[in-house]
Amino acid sequence: MQELIETKPSVMSSDEPDRPTQPGTFLSRQTGNSGLAPGAGDVDFPVCVVLPAGGSGERTGLLTPKQFCLLLSRPLISYTIQTFERVSWIQTIVVVVAKENMDLMAGIIQRFRHTKVRVVPGGSTRHRSIRNGVLALKEDEGSIAGRPKVIIIHDAVRPFVEEDFLYKITMAARGQGAAGAIRPLVSTVIATTSEGYLDHSLERAKYRASEMPQGFAYDVIHEAYERCTEADFDFGTECLHLVLQYCSTNAKLVEGPPTLWKVTYKRDLAAAESIVKDTLSQSLCMITGGREHARMLADTLHKAFFALQMELDIIPDLTGDNVRYLFKTWNFIQFSINDSALDTIETTFQALEAANQTLLHPVVVVWVNVSTLDGGASEPAAIMELASAAKLRNILLYGIHLQQSKDPECWERSVSKVAEMTSALIRERSPAFAGQLLQA
Amino acid sequence: MQELIETKPSVMSSDEPDRPTQPGTFLSRQTGNSGLAPGAGDVDFPVCVVLPAGGSGERTGLLTPKQFCLLLSRPLISYTIQTFERVSWIQTIVVVVAKENMDLMAGIIQRFRHTKVRVVPGGSTRHRSIRNGVLALKEDEGSIAGRPKVIIIHDAVRPFVEEDFLYKITMAARGQGAAGAIRPLVSTVIATTSEGYLDHSLERAKYRASEMPQGFAYDVIHEAYERCTEADFDFGTECLHLVLQYCSTNAKLVEGPPTLWKVTYKRDLAAAESIVKDTLSQSLCMITGGREHARMLADTLHKAFFALQMELDIIPDLTGDNVRYLFKTWNFIQFSINDSALDTIETTFQALEAANQTLLHPVVVVWVNVSTLDGGASEPAAIMELASAAKLRNILLYGIHLQQSKDPECWERSVSKVAEMTSALIRERSPAFAGQLLQA
Repeated sequence: MQELIETKPSVMSSDEPDRPTQPGTFLSRQTGNSGLAPGAGDVDFPVCVVLPAGGSGERTGLLTPKQFCLLLSRPLISYTIQTFERVSWIQTIVVVVAKENMDLMAGIIQRFRHTKVRVVPGGSTRHRSIRNGVLALKEDEGSIAGRPKVIIIHDAVRPFVEEDFLYKITMAARGQGAAGAIRPLVSTVIATTSEGYLDHSLERAKYRASEMPQGFAYDVIHEAYERCTEADFDFGTECLHLVLQYCSTNAKLVEGPPTLWKVTYKRDLAAAESIVKDTLSQSLCMITGGREHARMLADTLHKAFFALQMELDIIPDLTGDNVRYLFKTWNFIQFSINDSALDTIETTFQALEAANQTLLHPVVVVWVNVSTLDGGASEPAAIMELASAAKLRNILLYGIHLQQSKDPECWERSVSKVAEMTSALIRERSPAFAGQLLQA
Repeated sequence: MQELIETKPSVMSSDEPDRPTQPGTFLSRQTGNSGLAPGAGDVDFPVCVVLPAGGSGERTGLLTPKQFCLLLSRPLISYTIQTFERVSWIQTIVVVVAKENMDLMAGIIQRFRHTKVRVVPGGSTRHRSIRNGVLALKEDEGSIAGRPKVIIIHDAVRPFVEEDFLYKITMAARGQGAAGAIRPLVSTVIATTSEGYLDHSLERAKYRASEMPQGFAYDVIHEAYERCTEADFDFGTECLHLVLQYCSTNAKLVEGPPTLWKVTYKRDLAAAESIVKDTLSQSLCMITGGREHARMLADTLHKAFFALQMELDIIPDLTGDNVRYLFKTWNFIQFSINDSALDTIETTFQALEAANQTLLHPVVVVWVNVSTLDGGASEPAAIMELASAAKLRNILLYGIHLQQSKDPECWERSVSKVAEMTSALIRERSPAFAGQLLQA
């Protein structure tokens, strides 16, 4: 029966992808030119973002608000900030946080080197927090362009929004004064009687779920907050509703992709981390050191990894033109034959650090040492030490020892074991096993 | 800054738990007495379940329908079936699958030894499939109790429903003729104009999302399907709506917990797997082999694991009364001092198999070998071989070699390394590293 079931949960009949189709959107630090269709990126007016992240965890005591929970050692909100930061036509991102989290937020900005962010203290309700963000942009000192024409409001806990959708919302907001993301309803919505019985169910086709991001002409959202009442500030939830009521601005609704989803429950953190891990695991660069033997092994591994749908490159070293591979992938295999290659690995680490690649995501380096001699050991103590130092630089180093065998069947088994373990190491990025020397 | 952020994503301010509070509900095979409040389990009439799992993956070609996707090597639908199977007062579970998946489903039932299940071919729409399931129970031959009084209808892709909620739905259905789970709306629901603009937003407090499970008096749902039209069969989605329209039965709505959530997107599979993994990782049994040295080490580890919120037991062996630990946990440490302990480990494997504990979830056994002699090796080839055989029995064996040190600081570091690696091995349950001998 086993063979009838797909063994990869990644192959499933989801109707739409729930992860970025352009992984660069949240992966790289480089700004601009992130894969938009030609002509789509012509935003020639200033656009800023307000990210309400005011949840203080008050209700639950000491627990961490979701936006500060860690995915691969980085707070969720840093992923969301990065998504906006790398969009070339976005000037400033105002993050609105509870007063008690201002220092925490400043620390995050410093540590992950966010450059377009300003932090503003939140208000007592969501609307008051958003208003604080909007007012902070009234004269946007951080920008040469001055006050923004359009403001995008987004949730700090929806990290996977993509540039092309932000563009759609921005242009609709510029044209209509307001725009909001919508999604089909996932469940039937029913009206209940006061006694807890079914009254009627809504016709699903006529309704939509209102999601984030939303976009507003600056003057429209500013005016709505000027005019609205204390009751609106206390109990209101929808900015779209405020601009309709106080500015007669009827928002354009834009159907959004599933990538807009919001991290709500603990399970969603696992889901988000799995999306980040999937994206980081899409490619692998194999460095042969220029050895023919390693080159042949890399070719054999190529087949095994190809079945795992990984993009692969085989290069002799990271010098010259090959420096570009530092920016292309978060995963490397360094081969060596009968020697420890520790010097080469240290050089790779330095190159990764110089390229800033370890700042946002942990980089995996798997050292595959082929021993063609009997009982060739691989300096387990030396690799452990090197790995401990590397971990502090956000590099995860693992070793795999591969004993050359003349028995082809035995050799094939060992090589596929290398592929299996390497892909598990890349997928899991577990710091607990850094420095271990595994046997293939 | 690091210390300001909680390092465990498990500590977060989710409003409600999204996983079973009684893990037994989906963990154990044992039926009955699964933690219900006293008196709550008095269901003295026959109850059956219909699980529509008709998605054939047609729309998406060759891809696997979600209900057959694997979580820790077991199809999602098997988790859902197990949840119902272990509720003592549920007689029969009718799984309705597309004709082309009948064999696949039969294979799943056989492999995971489900005993209360009948498989019925689906119809062309959801309602036709559910009707097939209802009709199959008309004279429930599989049950001495005859035709059920109440039928629970549930989704195959909502594996975490709990017994106490099934009880609530069942009793409400018995009393009112129909009952359905509801949840608060997660997003604002808005009505759109035909041109794609905001018309108005609904007052959230008055509406609810209709979820699964739903319960019906057998005669009510049967009659509704007898009377309803072809159009209902083609386009209808809500059973609650049919019984209201054709039987004037007004369903009682019951507020459900977040554990009712539905696996919809690929990310939800990762979320579901993480819930299963969390639940399997809650406890650990350490087997000292009766050695004083091992006992002391276990005590030291106890502290480290306690910080990880794991429930811990230290026992000399698995004989006598201690057999109960086989049913209590999916994780074991077997200690040994200067010897391979392979015989003892093999005995543990046999006990686990005899207890049927490896049928539903992979069991983790970590062999921790303490070497008090210089350069004491640990037979890496022998453990690899044993682990390969164990993997076929759904047991994951890993080795950790721990060199005794007289330097207290060095020893402490090694011991906390054992704790770190063991908890990562337990958490990840990765088959790729089975048989590896790690260094602490």
